[in-house]
Amino acid sequence: MSILVIGSVAFDTISTPFGAADDVLGGSACYFSTSASFFTDVNLVAVVGDDFPQQHIDFLSSRGIGLEGLQRAEGQTFRWKGRYEYDLNEAHTLDTQLNVFEQFKPVLPESYRQAEYVFLANIDPELQLEVLEQVKNPKLVACDTMNFWISGKRDALIRTLARVDTLVINEAEVRQLANEPNLVKAASIVRGFGPKTLVVKRGEYGVLMFGAHSIFSAPAYPLEEVFDPTGAGDTFAGGFVGYLASTRNLEESNLRKAIVFGTVMASFTVERFSLDRLRNLEYQEIEDRYRRIKLLTDFGQLD
Amino acid sequence: MSILVIGSVAFDTISTPFGAADDVLGGSACYFSTSASFFTDVNLVAVVGDDFPQQHIDFLSSRGIGLEGLQRAEGQTFRWKGRYEYDLNEAHTLDTQLNVFEQFKPVLPESYRQAEYVFLANIDPELQLEVLEQVKNPKLVACDTMNFWISGKRDALIRTLARVDTLVINEAEVRQLANEPNLVKAASIVRGFGPKTLVVKRGEYGVLMFGAHSIFSAPAYPLEEVFDPTGAGDTFAGGFVGYLASTRNLEESNLRKAIVFGTVMASFTVERFSLDRLRNLEYQEIEDRYRRIKLLTDFGQLD
Repeated sequence: MSILVIGSVAFDTISTPFGAADDVLGGSACYFSTSASFFTDVNLVAVVGDDFPQQHIDFLSSRGIGLEGLQRAEGQTFRWKGRYEYDLNEAHTLDTQLNVFEQFKPVLPESYRQAEYVFLANIDPELQLEVLEQVKNPKLVACDTMNFWISGKRDALIRTLARVDTLVINEAEVRQLANEPNLVKAASIVRGFGPKTLVVKRGEYGVLMFGAHSIFSAPAYPLEEVFDPTGAGDTFAGGFVGYLASTRNLEESNLRKAIVFGTVMASFTVERFSLDRLRNLEYQEIEDRYRRIKLLTDFGQLD
Repeated sequence: MSILVIGSVAFDTISTPFGAADDVLGGSACYFSTSASFFTDVNLVAVVGDDFPQQHIDFLSSRGIGLEGLQRAEGQTFRWKGRYEYDLNEAHTLDTQLNVFEQFKPVLPESYRQAEYVFLANIDPELQLEVLEQVKNPKLVACDTMNFWISGKRDALIRTLARVDTLVINEAEVRQLANEPNLVKAASIVRGFGPKTLVVKRGEYGVLMFGAHSIFSAPAYPLEEVFDPTGAGDTFAGGFVGYLASTRNLEESNLRKAIVFGTVMASFTVERFSLDRLRNLEYQEIEDRYRRIKLLTDFGQLD
């Protein structure tokens, strides 16, 4: 079953302690859809400017990503410039140019409105709602957001969350959204806003998923080389929703497996700049790393 | 088999966003030995002043902790004063009074020198070495340290580590000791100093254990009420070494179970000030929480 994702397609300029990259392909919808494409079909809704080169279109097409909803507008593509220090958990934004994204009105092609799996990447919650109103009868709506919308468009965000099944956000953002420092209590408050499932991203510390019946903890895959964390969260979400859509199973045991697949996908992305590590990734490598995370977390039952 | 622990017995004065406590029982050796006493016998080597009340002696005795090595010196007991903000991962030290600890020379009673399991809590690495020289033929030497010794007594610490099997330290301290920001690389460097096993404490993010053949990741138990993190690390170490000594099994699968028992013990300690939660803890509660961590981390194999 195919997934619908709405989010950004961007040029990123990044510096880390290990190197720098200028105007490379990025954006939440790119990371998500490329990651999800290893599991199932994805249709992308986003906007680019007239500076967006054919080679990136060709790459996304080569991953089987549906681009009928990729609008092309006059002007420049969205640009983000950021820096990381040795603490790779924290991105320092140096510059954001919305460009064509400023006037973006998501309009779903007719064939996308039947989407059963929807991911609303981190964009204005009012746009997220507009998309939801165009989707007929989704099985799963997952959503990301950020501190900027939590503080600046809280009311719209709360209206969106009421229609979301699974919220995927950072640890600090859960605390901010709930206005509660204890994560377990904060998760309970945020689940009260609507999402039955809350997936808390903790960077190199992995993921906590709060569901109706239990909490699930998954570690990040320990890497000797973390090169650039940009896109890790969206790549995670792509693996998570991608696996769920490919298996058509939303039981808790399957949600847990999906979390681990998301973690695996993110672990590849951070090994290189941009989407470079995913360009030549083989599905067998994904399963290998899934098995390694199983070994990493395994310990004995009590007698 | 009994454990030998050398460390501090202290009075702690603590404030957190949730309350405050004055001159309560604390110190690394107290937390460690009380935690380990749920699994096996413990002998404690430490020093207290003439202000140390009988009620604390009685409590430690009631846990079956051997106090033959608890020296009593003229003067005041070691005192630590600290504060936590909402980020409970970070302790802000307001005052440290070494008092009788300043002149402390650890002398092991004859019967302690046969100890097979030794824990060198976070004290001057020169004292840690003096203790090791008095122990005849230990099966397992585990050790803690801190940033103060890593920067101030690095040479002595490196000499101590050459004789240590298992180093149990905080994440930031691993990076500092190795002078390497990547944790996986840092762990490899630190294991090169001597310890076959490195246990990295990450506060609310759990524990990573780096061994000869694999890495093991255990989450912290998610708590709705984290009241006071003081002593969590030493309580963890007490459960870890305590379980190993009680089972007399140093295979990797058993080290993993021991890590989870340590995590369980720490999760109780942080629910109250001082050792208060451990005072009325039942062994059945420990096993219950172990099983909950099993459920927390469980996910399916690939077909």
